[in-house]
Amino acid sequence: MRDLSELRKLIACGKGNIPCDYKFSNVMLVNVVSAEIYPTDIYVLGKRIVSIDPNADLKANHVIDCQGMYALPGLIDTHMHFESSMLSPEAFANVIVPKGTTTLLSDLMEIANVAGKPGLREILESIKMLPYRMLLEVPSRVPTAPGLETTGAYLGVEEVDMLLDWEESLSLGEMDSGKILISLEDEYLLKVISALNRKKIVNGHAIGRLGQELNTYASTGISDDHECVTAQEMLERLRVGMKIMIREGSTGRNIEELIGAVVKSHLDTENLMFCTDDKDISDIEKEGHINYNINKSIELGLSPMKAIQMATINAAKHFRAEEDMGSIAPGRLADILLTKDIRDIQPEQVWYEGRLVAKEGKMIGEVPVRQYPEWIKNTVHLKRPVTGSSFVINSLYKTDRTASVRVINLIEGQIINKESQANLPAVNGKILCSTEKDILKIAVIERYGKNGMVGNGFVSGFGLKSGAIAYSMSHDHHNIVVVGTNDDDMATAVNKIADLHGGACVVENGEFKADMQLSIGGLMSEKNAEEVRTELRSINSAAAKLGCTLPSPFMSLSFVSLPTVPELGFSDKGLIDVNSQKIIEVVLS
Amino acid sequence: MRDLSELRKLIACGKGNIPCDYKFSNVMLVNVVSAEIYPTDIYVLGKRIVSIDPNADLKANHVIDCQGMYALPGLIDTHMHFESSMLSPEAFANVIVPKGTTTLLSDLMEIANVAGKPGLREILESIKMLPYRMLLEVPSRVPTAPGLETTGAYLGVEEVDMLLDWEESLSLGEMDSGKILISLEDEYLLKVISALNRKKIVNGHAIGRLGQELNTYASTGISDDHECVTAQEMLERLRVGMKIMIREGSTGRNIEELIGAVVKSHLDTENLMFCTDDKDISDIEKEGHINYNINKSIELGLSPMKAIQMATINAAKHFRAEEDMGSIAPGRLADILLTKDIRDIQPEQVWYEGRLVAKEGKMIGEVPVRQYPEWIKNTVHLKRPVTGSSFVINSLYKTDRTASVRVINLIEGQIINKESQANLPAVNGKILCSTEKDILKIAVIERYGKNGMVGNGFVSGFGLKSGAIAYSMSHDHHNIVVVGTNDDDMATAVNKIADLHGGACVVENGEFKADMQLSIGGLMSEKNAEEVRTELRSINSAAAKLGCTLPSPFMSLSFVSLPTVPELGFSDKGLIDVNSQKIIEVVLS
Repeated sequence: MRDLSELRKLIACGKGNIPCDYKFSNVMLVNVVSAEIYPTDIYVLGKRIVSIDPNADLKANHVIDCQGMYALPGLIDTHMHFESSMLSPEAFANVIVPKGTTTLLSDLMEIANVAGKPGLREILESIKMLPYRMLLEVPSRVPTAPGLETTGAYLGVEEVDMLLDWEESLSLGEMDSGKILISLEDEYLLKVISALNRKKIVNGHAIGRLGQELNTYASTGISDDHECVTAQEMLERLRVGMKIMIREGSTGRNIEELIGAVVKSHLDTENLMFCTDDKDISDIEKEGHINYNINKSIELGLSPMKAIQMATINAAKHFRAEEDMGSIAPGRLADILLTKDIRDIQPEQVWYEGRLVAKEGKMIGEVPVRQYPEWIKNTVHLKRPVTGSSFVINSLYKTDRTASVRVINLIEGQIINKESQANLPAVNGKILCSTEKDILKIAVIERYGKNGMVGNGFVSGFGLKSGAIAYSMSHDHHNIVVVGTNDDDMATAVNKIADLHGGACVVENGEFKADMQLSIGGLMSEKNAEEVRTELRSINSAAAKLGCTLPSPFMSLSFVSLPTVPELGFSDKGLIDVNSQKIIEVVLS
Repeated sequence: MRDLSELRKLIACGKGNIPCDYKFSNVMLVNVVSAEIYPTDIYVLGKRIVSIDPNADLKANHVIDCQGMYALPGLIDTHMHFESSMLSPEAFANVIVPKGTTTLLSDLMEIANVAGKPGLREILESIKMLPYRMLLEVPSRVPTAPGLETTGAYLGVEEVDMLLDWEESLSLGEMDSGKILISLEDEYLLKVISALNRKKIVNGHAIGRLGQELNTYASTGISDDHECVTAQEMLERLRVGMKIMIREGSTGRNIEELIGAVVKSHLDTENLMFCTDDKDISDIEKEGHINYNINKSIELGLSPMKAIQMATINAAKHFRAEEDMGSIAPGRLADILLTKDIRDIQPEQVWYEGRLVAKEGKMIGEVPVRQYPEWIKNTVHLKRPVTGSSFVINSLYKTDRTASVRVINLIEGQIINKESQANLPAVNGKILCSTEKDILKIAVIERYGKNGMVGNGFVSGFGLKSGAIAYSMSHDHHNIVVVGTNDDDMATAVNKIADLHGGACVVENGEFKADMQLSIGGLMSEKNAEEVRTELRSINSAAAKLGCTLPSPFMSLSFVSLPTVPELGFSDKGLIDVNSQKIIEVVLS
């Protein structure tokens, strides 16, 4: 929000009546509006840029000799789920800001499922103190699968209306194409209307839709898509008037295909921008964040100017925020990167709202994690403690007769899964899992203290030979999910997660092998990035010692329950057929 | 505004469950988002486009064989003052719609000065029934020169706030650079803040500003400029993050210079669009409207795609309305032109919101002027009738001694004027004008019934040898302005304007030679374009018979009073020095 005193000061400074705070001299300005790179000076007062006029010669309290470095606008990630980092907003700052990202457009659907509007508010309050800005893509589907899962909160039309009125809310978040084309509930259409009537955009989520389906989807006023994977999908989206957020995260890696096509066909980049969606902190550390998207695009043959525009002004325009960000121009917030190489952007300095916040890849003073209020660190409530008997899956018969069951089969490196059937032995009418066949028990335990429901089933792909692993992040309902070789270890693991107020743990024969606390909403840690990485390595390695063969067992655990990704989902209410959006039986015969 | 039933129907139609209204088959789609031209079908339901998928094959109630014609989005004029046409919104429709303009961004500052918020509302209500849409650039300066002129209304910060909340308001209208850089009243800064905090843009008005002045101006968050005349001005505006509305109207003709520079330097057109500002109905009839801007740009070497984008999607994006207009894409309002030649756009058919409204250059049924309410046709109120004595200019002496006076000198074809001094005879202490020297009397008579003030002075350039001419359009205060060779004819002319409730007239020796009624706010006629053109010819020719040498004497008359264009302005309070914004003496010695 602008205010009068700030505006008065900007004008006074521009007229030479008061000095500015900083003059960046000897700088090569990457002007993303005029699409030029030229030498000039940049003047900053308070949070904003006063002038970029080479002949301004304004007074300055501090002069920074940029030694001919390039000055770029701060980078914008147009779509991401912040909570997936497992970090607090504070700890996340230390990871992304040195890479040059100063604005996140974040769909906080995870914390919204757990803690609703107060949870969102709490995260945004946190952000106000930090060296980057988080703007909100208002979660459009909380819960993701109404009726099929228990969540901590519900954001209906009325709640979404209120959220859309927040200053930080720039859009309605990823509106799933299934909600528009298949399930067709008025609730989702009303949310779209609410956003459009407020002149805010609606982000899309249209995996694989093409042709007339895509036309119908776009006809509702949805503006963009970050789920675009092929060149044909990209072109068809542009034709129906949608913009593309080209994603390069840890799992979704679309730059090579899409920028490859842009370069090959000389496609205009005006309607393209970048996002990460979900990117591991280790990958960010190793590769970079949005700067990596730029660098990789340049490597593929895109001009530096066009790649930088995609990461800055194109994003700002799309979200209707170009008076505040996306360019180094008078009146914009002074988010400025200084970098030596325009083809490989590794910021020497990162300035956020007129303050130097990172230098040579490191924060100027690490940002400490603040004290979060107790209520948000106390969101995991079992209606009653679980016991081994919570996970019993009864056969249809009271005898030892072999049972036929449905099994969720993981596919390595992907979040989709496959349904299969298997025969499992039963003892006294209770079906046993089989470590030989790698068919283990999986359960989701309602953790909001609402109904104590437990969904039980079978999963293949984890490879555990003993013990159990449990986790309080399970998309998108974020109940406790557990996979195990025996009921008792599963119970021990789940109760441990409750004791931790959220997190992950590994249990074998009643003993805790490793754990990690994620107390903020049961999703995020209060520790810093380095500590979280260490803890993550420790629980992963403990899981591997139980025989787990997956590279990221907890990430797999968090996605196996997702009720919107084919073929099977899983919740506290049981096994979900994604296609029909119905609860289905685990035991067939 | 979108509503649920419309959205439901669009989806149902897209899914093939109900037929659309129209299928445009055999059409070459000018896709301004993907920047391609290709054959497809366009499907329309109600006001909106359902699909442009070539393989959709949806059911349609009517099929239109477009015989291979090009389909373009309806054209957008990004800045204009509607009232200058002298026509009602209804009569104006018949002039611009056949040329393909379906959206006007209009700064209704004239009617706002006369009738404030109710006046604006009345015009916008009118528009709802018409075959084009008028969107509002909220007038930012009513009055233009506070304290120096009497106006019918005042729009302060509070009123502008209310206007900015209107659905039709997309921006704050042309914020004059003088208000920001020189006079610096908080009122104007607060209006800018109001717009920005509503995420609406602020239109600029920065005649000739360059360098640090332009940087300071842009630092307040102002987004664009339509007063850009030279290539250097254009480039400097782009550098500070402003967009350019390239103007081609009746007086301001900037396409040749600016598009010439764009073509020469291969400048990106993403931040460029078109406007007319003020264009006579005769010029529109002869040349075209925004289609002329496109055609002329193509002639100058711009590609048809880029020129059409400037007139459509670029404008829609800038005003943050691209979900509704600016492209032929699913969900957008069905504003469609069909044209045979892509390099010379003369619409064969114009569709507005899914209805065929013009064909082969003519409206499908002329739009009749509606009955306006009595109050808006009754805005001209003299505090008291004027007489010859109202226009007496006393010498500083009670004798016949020659007086030295300031004179406003018109410059043909421009709205700026020059100050000069002249010696005039006096009789009994009253200064006489001189037809020999072409130094006539000019007066502005307060016409809002507020204070009955009369400003008197001298003007050169009209060339009248006898009689007087008067007009109720005088920028921006719109009091009655009169120029004459004698006081009695001046009085007769002014009283006639009052009797007409606004308009223009020519008087000689107490006889009415010609008149024209502009009863809507004293600015616009209730007649149609053809009748208005005839009346205009008649008053112009009557003025010529009095000896007037100007090609458009009433347009000159309307601009001579403008208190913001150098060197002199004129109001009911007297002669205004534009530079110092002060009332100055007419009689020097």
